[in-house]
Amino acid sequence: MVENESDQLRAVMAALAPHTGNARVIGLTGSPGVGKSTCTSALVAAYRREGLRVGVLAVDPSSPFSGGALLGDRVRMNDHALDPGVYVRSMATRGHLGGLAWAVPQAVRVLDAAGCGVILIETVGVGQSEVDIAAQADTTVVLLAPGMGDGVQAAKAGILEVGDLFVVNKADRDGAGTTVRELQHMLGLGPPRAPGEWRPSVVRTVAARGEGVDELVAALAKHHGWLLEHDALAARRRRRAAGEIETIALTALRGRMAALRGDQRLGALAARVHAGELDPYAAADLLLEGLR
Amino acid sequence: MVENESDQLRAVMAALAPHTGNARVIGLTGSPGVGKSTCTSALVAAYRREGLRVGVLAVDPSSPFSGGALLGDRVRMNDHALDPGVYVRSMATRGHLGGLAWAVPQAVRVLDAAGCGVILIETVGVGQSEVDIAAQADTTVVLLAPGMGDGVQAAKAGILEVGDLFVVNKADRDGAGTTVRELQHMLGLGPPRAPGEWRPSVVRTVAARGEGVDELVAALAKHHGWLLEHDALAARRRRRAAGEIETIALTALRGRMAALRGDQRLGALAARVHAGELDPYAAADLLLEGLR
Repeated sequence: MVENESDQLRAVMAALAPHTGNARVIGLTGSPGVGKSTCTSALVAAYRREGLRVGVLAVDPSSPFSGGALLGDRVRMNDHALDPGVYVRSMATRGHLGGLAWAVPQAVRVLDAAGCGVILIETVGVGQSEVDIAAQADTTVVLLAPGMGDGVQAAKAGILEVGDLFVVNKADRDGAGTTVRELQHMLGLGPPRAPGEWRPSVVRTVAARGEGVDELVAALAKHHGWLLEHDALAARRRRRAAGEIETIALTALRGRMAALRGDQRLGALAARVHAGELDPYAAADLLLEGLR
Repeated sequence: MVENESDQLRAVMAALAPHTGNARVIGLTGSPGVGKSTCTSALVAAYRREGLRVGVLAVDPSSPFSGGALLGDRVRMNDHALDPGVYVRSMATRGHLGGLAWAVPQAVRVLDAAGCGVILIETVGVGQSEVDIAAQADTTVVLLAPGMGDGVQAAKAGILEVGDLFVVNKADRDGAGTTVRELQHMLGLGPPRAPGEWRPSVVRTVAARGEGVDELVAALAKHHGWLLEHDALAARRRRRAAGEIETIALTALRGRMAALRGDQRLGALAARVHAGELDPYAAADLLLEGLR
């Protein structure tokens, strides 16, 4: 229903509201090939062992495919295909509404209400929209792999600022040590952190063999604890809710605007402006009155 | 005042409204190097000979320079620098409001009310925003030059659809005939035109020597006559006014939205959504009520 922008979504969201706010939301982002899906899959297994229900949203802003379980994900998420405690969904660029900025937080809300203790949002790439989506999470994990020049790329994309945790995956490869050091160096170059401020940590993993996954889970728990301790979790979630409200409001306004274009109101105002009877500001006021 | 998004603009536009609607608005677009400024300058001279006041807006959507008379234009428009009947202004990408889509039609409105009989809007490049700006004119002129592969580029940019007139400038160069033929061929490839529909014509000029400029002026007059005869001028201008009203209305809405973000309303709603007391749709409704 979220993906199809159903008319009933409104009623559904109203019914779900009291059941939300329990899921930990973790965002994972990084360039293609760093092993995001493998890492996500390893995290799913780890949280399943803790007895949590897990939701996974695999988001590809650049993909023209519409939502649904794509073959690729089904293959990559094979390990959990038969586990009723795991829900995996691919989301790609959506139609005319606010796109993923509109759909992803609402999908998170649905999974949250459905009792997922952890929701993993995996985004492909390190562009602005990927960063924006990943930054909606409680904890944002940035993945890199040795020898991909990712560090510099990540710095350029502004992803160093949004990462709460950094994972150097495929850490058995040559150059892993260099990547970790480069990353730590770049993280140290930022403005000095205030006392009590979160200090992003760097975790090495070989997710395909499950190495370092316990350390990653521990680092995620540590960040979650820090968020709770510093009253930052509620602040992040309120910010996420604010973004969600604004996107829905702007979408509604655009819709009403389009409806006005459809009927003859805008045309009639344009004719009066054309005739010099009205200036465009006064006409815009009258148009906006029509939105009420 | 338009460029600085002055608060007084509203009052000024209200006062100007009854004095608008008299200027012929001509858009000129084409790749850098085809001779747009030379051609514009030649047209200015021609319309000055007819005794008309002429306004020129040189628009560069890709330029980071703010408005004002840039040196380049002063040089290129040298011929008219001392003529009080000619007003030349460079406009570049503007700040936080709707950008050139917001500023250009309002600048046109000011020049119109100031008694310009003709307003020339010259845009650099053939990208979508250039096309959009040029398409706001009563008559849109697309310039090409021989041997620049412009024909294909123009076709790609969708500029063939918006051009009412095509000018092959620098027509004394090798390949001018080929360019004209290619262009006529491409124009002929479009969907069949309804009877009475305007058929874009192709004019050859060597604007730097004034050659073909009379033919261009005649072609412009012919198109203007066609517009009047087919009641298409009013339709175009009403469409332009509608776009202007919509841009102002959307800008106002965004401003009000930003103001709401500034005060605590959105924050308070976000806290209630975070607490599960309210769903984001209901919160968006309450936010929009605050816009009234």
